[in-house]
Parts: sequence; C-alpha cells; structure tokens
Amino acid sequence: MIGPRYTSLIAELPATVPFVGPETQERERGAQFLARIGANENVFGPSPRAVQAMVEAARDIWKYGDPENYDLKQALAKYHDVPAENIVVGEGIDGLLGYLVRLLVSKGTPVVTSLGAYPTFNYHVTGFGGELCTVPYVDDAEDPEALIELASQKAAPLIYLANPDNPMGTWHGADTVQAMIDAVPEGSLLCLDEAYIEFAPVDTAPSLDVNNTRVIRFRTFSKAYGMAGMRIGYGIGDKSLIRAFDKIRNHFGVSRIAQAAALAALEDQSYLEEIQTKVKKARETIRSIATENGLDSLPSATNFVAVDCGGDSAYAKAVLQGLIERGVFVRMPLVAPQSRCIRISAGTDEDLDLLKETLPLVLDTVKLE
Amino acid sequence: MIGPRYTSLIAELPATVPFVGPETQERERGAQFLARIGANENVFGPSPRAVQAMVEAARDIWKYGDPENYDLKQALAKYHDVPAENIVVGEGIDGLLGYLVRLLVSKGTPVVTSLGAYPTFNYHVTGFGGELCTVPYVDDAEDPEALIELASQKAAPLIYLANPDNPMGTWHGADTVQAMIDAVPEGSLLCLDEAYIEFAPVDTAPSLDVNNTRVIRFRTFSKAYGMAGMRIGYGIGDKSLIRAFDKIRNHFGVSRIAQAAALAALEDQSYLEEIQTKVKKARETIRSIATENGLDSLPSATNFVAVDCGGDSAYAKAVLQGLIERGVFVRMPLVAPQSRCIRISAGTDEDLDLLKETLPLVLDTVKLE
Repeated sequence: MIGPRYTSLIAELPATVPFVGPETQERERGAQFLARIGANENVFGPSPRAVQAMVEAARDIWKYGDPENYDLKQALAKYHDVPAENIVVGEGIDGLLGYLVRLLVSKGTPVVTSLGAYPTFNYHVTGFGGELCTVPYVDDAEDPEALIELASQKAAPLIYLANPDNPMGTWHGADTVQAMIDAVPEGSLLCLDEAYIEFAPVDTAPSLDVNNTRVIRFRTFSKAYGMAGMRIGYGIGDKSLIRAFDKIRNHFGVSRIAQAAALAALEDQSYLEEIQTKVKKARETIRSIATENGLDSLPSATNFVAVDCGGDSAYAKAVLQGLIERGVFVRMPLVAPQSRCIRISAGTDEDLDLLKETLPLVLDTVKLE
Repeated sequence: MIGPRYTSLIAELPATVPFVGPETQERERGAQFLARIGANENVFGPSPRAVQAMVEAARDIWKYGDPENYDLKQALAKYHDVPAENIVVGEGIDGLLGYLVRLLVSKGTPVVTSLGAYPTFNYHVTGFGGELCTVPYVDDAEDPEALIELASQKAAPLIYLANPDNPMGTWHGADTVQAMIDAVPEGSLLCLDEAYIEFAPVDTAPSLDVNNTRVIRFRTFSKAYGMAGMRIGYGIGDKSLIRAFDKIRNHFGVSRIAQAAALAALEDQSYLEEIQTKVKKARETIRSIATENGLDSLPSATNFVAVDCGGDSAYAKAVLQGLIERGVFVRMPLVAPQSRCIRISAGTDEDLDLLKETLPLVLDTVKLE
C-alpha cells in the first residue's frame, strides 16, 4: 500500500513541535518538576470568579459553545471601547496565528519576523509554505525599523512583532510601536502579538485604532488572566480582516467552558491588579536572585525574566539542564546571542525559594571555562 | 489603504458558517429555547466523574495542557487495544477534519463525499481549495459503492463517510464498511467519521486495523460522552499518517481541562451504558411521537431521529420553523430528498413532552397543500 497522497507542501514538511511540554520532560525524568517556571504560565492562577464560572459551565458542557462567542465579544468590546465586529475570538493566540497565517501565506510567501522570536508563529508560516525572512535582535530587543525595512524590500504581506517580546521580556514604548504601525508598507499587515501586555508599563500599547487596516492586535487569557490551559485569546482589527477569519476558522472551536471562564476573568479586574502586583514582585525577586549569583538580568515587561548566564549558549544550556535536573523547569531562547540567557517565569514564593536555593548549586557544578 | 493581501484562495472564499448556533437563533427570537434538541448534543450530559475532573482541572488551568495528550492517549490505546502511536487527539472531530483535509487537499484536489453529508467536512475541503465531488444518498443512506466508484474515477485522495450517518441517522453494518475500506483505491484515504458509533448496534464498526493505510477513524467525546462544548476527539490510523498530524496540528490546542474530562469520561463506562439506554428510549419516544402525528421516521443508530414530514423541503422547513417559534430547537437536512425530514435529537423526558405537545399544534397550522 502506498499510503495517502499528501499535498506537495505537506510531503516536504518535517514533523516538528514548537515546544516540548514540561509533562514530556517529567516523563523522561521520571519525576515531576518542583517548580514549573519555564513556560511563562501564570502560577498564581485565574480569578476565583473564573474558576466558579468553569464549575458552572461544567454542568452544561453537553452544549456546543456559541460559535459567535457573542457574550465574550460584547464584554471585550465594552472593555476595549471598540465595536464587537472588530474582534475575533479564537483558540488562544496560537490558534489565531494559525488562522492569520492561513489568510495571508501560501507557498513562497515572504514573512518577516525577528530571528529567535516566537517559534509557534514560525511553525505556522512554515506549515503554510511561507518563507521566513528574519531580522536580528538589537540589544536583546526586536528591531521595528529593520523589520519594516525588510518587509518593504521583500514585499512581505505579514510582519510579526511581539511587544513585549518573548523570549527576552524587553519592550518598546507605545510611540515606537505606533511609528512602526504607521510605517507598515501598503498591502502589508503587522501582527502585533500583545500576549504579555497586561504586565507592561501603561504606555506600552499604542491606542487601538480599529480602522487601521495595517495592524491586527492579539491578546490572550493565557497569561495575565492565568488560563493557558484553557485555549482562548482574541484579535482586534479592521472589520473586513476580522470577517475574513470567518472564512476559515473552526466556528465551534472555542470551548463553552473557555468562553464562560474568559468572561468571568475579564469582569474581575481587581484580581488582575493583584496578579500584576504579584508578578512585578516575582520579577524583582528573580532579578535579585540573579544578582546574588553574580548574573545580569534583563528588565522585563512580562511575567518572566531573561537571566544572562554570562557565557555562551552551551553554558546557558548547561545551567538550564542543571536546574531541570534539580526539578526547576525553565526554558531558554533558541538563537544566539539571546541564547546566552535562560528564561525564568514569575513563580510563587515557594518556586522562587527553590530557585534561590538551586541556582548557586547549579552554577557551582557548571563552571565557566 | 488597500488592506491585507490575502492568498488567492482566501480572496475567492466566501465567509460561511457551517451551522448557525442555537444561541444566535435565541438572540434573534429574543427568547431562550425551551428544548434544545437540534444539534445532536447529548442532553443527559457527561459522567459526574468527568464533571469532577473538570472541577479539579479548573484550579490548574494556568498550566498549558500536555501537547502530547499522553495520559489520554494511553487510556485510549488501552481501551481500543491499539498502540498509542496510532492515535491523534485533537480539538473535536471538527478540528481533526480540518487537519486531515489540510494534509491531503490543496487547490483543485477532488474530494468525494455524499450530497448532503456533514457540512463542516465540506467547509474544510472548500477552505483548502478542494473540489467536492458528491454522490447522492440511496434510500436515505450514504452509498459506499458509489463513493468508492467516484473516488476511483476522480483519483480523489480523500473520501468521507459518516457511519452512522448524520443527518439521517442511518447506518451500514461492519461488513459493508469493511468491504468499502477494502475497496479504497490505492493512494486514497477513507475518512470514516464514527462520531455516533457508541449509539449504534454492536456490529456497526469494523474492527480496528491500525496497519491499514487506507482508512482513518474519528471518534469524539462530544456525543455519547456528552461534552460537545469541550472540543475533544481523536483519530485512529496508520502511524505514519498519525505522525503527519504533528506537522501541522496546534500542539497545545487541546485544553488541559478537556484532556482531564475526557480521561475521566472514558473511565466511566457504566455511565456510558446508562446514556446508551436513555438515548435508545428517547429515540423510541421520538418515533412514537412521529407515528402519533401520522409521520414516518427513520430507524437511527445515533442520538437523533430523522422524521419524515411527508412533504417537500419547504413543508419540512415550515414544520421546523413552527417548532422553533414555539421554543423547540431542531434542525433539518439541507439537501433534497433528505430535506423532507426534520432531525430531532434525543431529549430529556421534559424535552420530548414539549415536542409531543408542540408538534401537533405546528402540524395543524402548517397544512400540507
């Protein structure tokens, strides 16, 4: 039997995984992690009101979710003061990135991003046959001007910027990002991934302009709202672009329980403020631990901190490995020179106590040569 | 501003929705439905153990779900007595159908299905540029021989069969389906959608043969397991085909809470048996109500019954509309001659009491001319 006839694009694609999950590593280690501070999850969890909404939705889970995500879109529209027709709700930003790429990218389409930026975006671009064109980070930050310049050169229909950035935690102010939006070449679209925006200083996000056809903004309930495992996020953009998602999205794809939980989470803004305070404190603790160990760390507008291990990629990898072996799950950037760092998510006090205890032990065994 | 440059495929696609959700209809009516028996949801809901699993998972929802769906795949492997490497877990059959179509279909690819079969499959095929080639139903059942013949003529890499069928509820026995699998042309793949299989007689599903590269089987937790709103289903097939999903699937797409709930639901087989009994009784009640009103109904191996309204599409539509206006949500097949029927899902006793009360009133107002 010759097997199925895959499309030519699929036949050439490797089977890849943007990230190995911590559960996979736990199975390999034969032990659970003691601190799970590697995937930028929000260890403080969701609002109790969101949990209550989940419990209530559990009983009604026999019903499909509303394919229009109506109630949530109405609440988001009110929250952001934009019309509901400018919002698309989807299966996390990961899911929405997949749809966006599918709208704009086919075989050979040039797509511009930063070298070492979000791998899942790259995974989707490659998966639809696009050609990744990259710009290096400058001083551990994405480079808006260079991204625009390359997009212009390549006539790329899609440009990716995460602000704040993942994996470095750095950010640009609203003015810089607005200048980038204004400079997007005619016929191009800026995918502005603001997954971490709720952790950033107030002047980080440019104001929303839903009539601007050159940018789509993505937000999520995975990070500040503490529900990475729920799979729900949203995009805000020009209404004709938002309508285009209806051509291809899995209309019933956002689960009923996710819609209910997101709505309740959004309504509990005082809990969000508590989270912001806790994350800020945890970031400071991580930076202190780094300092105590003679390591630099990067300022961060996210719920994680990039700690510069002071050596090369191999050295950072050894530090990372040492932490993992001792039960501390962390990750690291994949591309040099950012890969001299490890990336540590804001943990609970217990998580960071363990980090504080473990990091010097690891550094002792992993000597800089 | 000229706006984003969509791919040529996307530019040509209409914005369509495979199904309008009942919530949309409720918003249009300005009132909730009194009986929700139109979307083949399982009104009896999930196992209490699944609900308990959801409540427990709610607290941990800050963690991403395991991208390998390991625990659930292990349990499914044991349940079906197949290796875990032959199973892919995804965001409901709808999500998995999207991935499967993406693997095999590009612009102009012929795909074979029955005229009037599952619209969401068609939505995906059209969405990836495929060309739908259809075979009519025969006696309200899909026609395996004709599907194979057309696939052979068209050299179609993908053939769709739902067994039991939706929207008619009819089914073929295991021998017929196995003969169809055996006749799948070299290089073609049969997508065997068994969403309703748990409601069917025991000799409906051919035995699983994971070495057969000509078929992939899809199952779901949306129907018999009562969790349509959770978005979790799975495929069983040849391991190289299963691995191909890893090239394109949203690895973190299946929510943590869905994985936990599905695992608990699978482990509660005695609850599943209760559901099977309740659904069987509800089917009989629906058929009795039809008979009392002088209407024929089709035998069903699903959790719904197609009731023949005895006229044409317009007449069935008027009956459907009358029920909807009186708060009874039902749906109907979209293509003649199946569209002479309305499709009624197995409801609770209260749901079916309301149907029993309402149907004669509707038939009185909607006279056959």
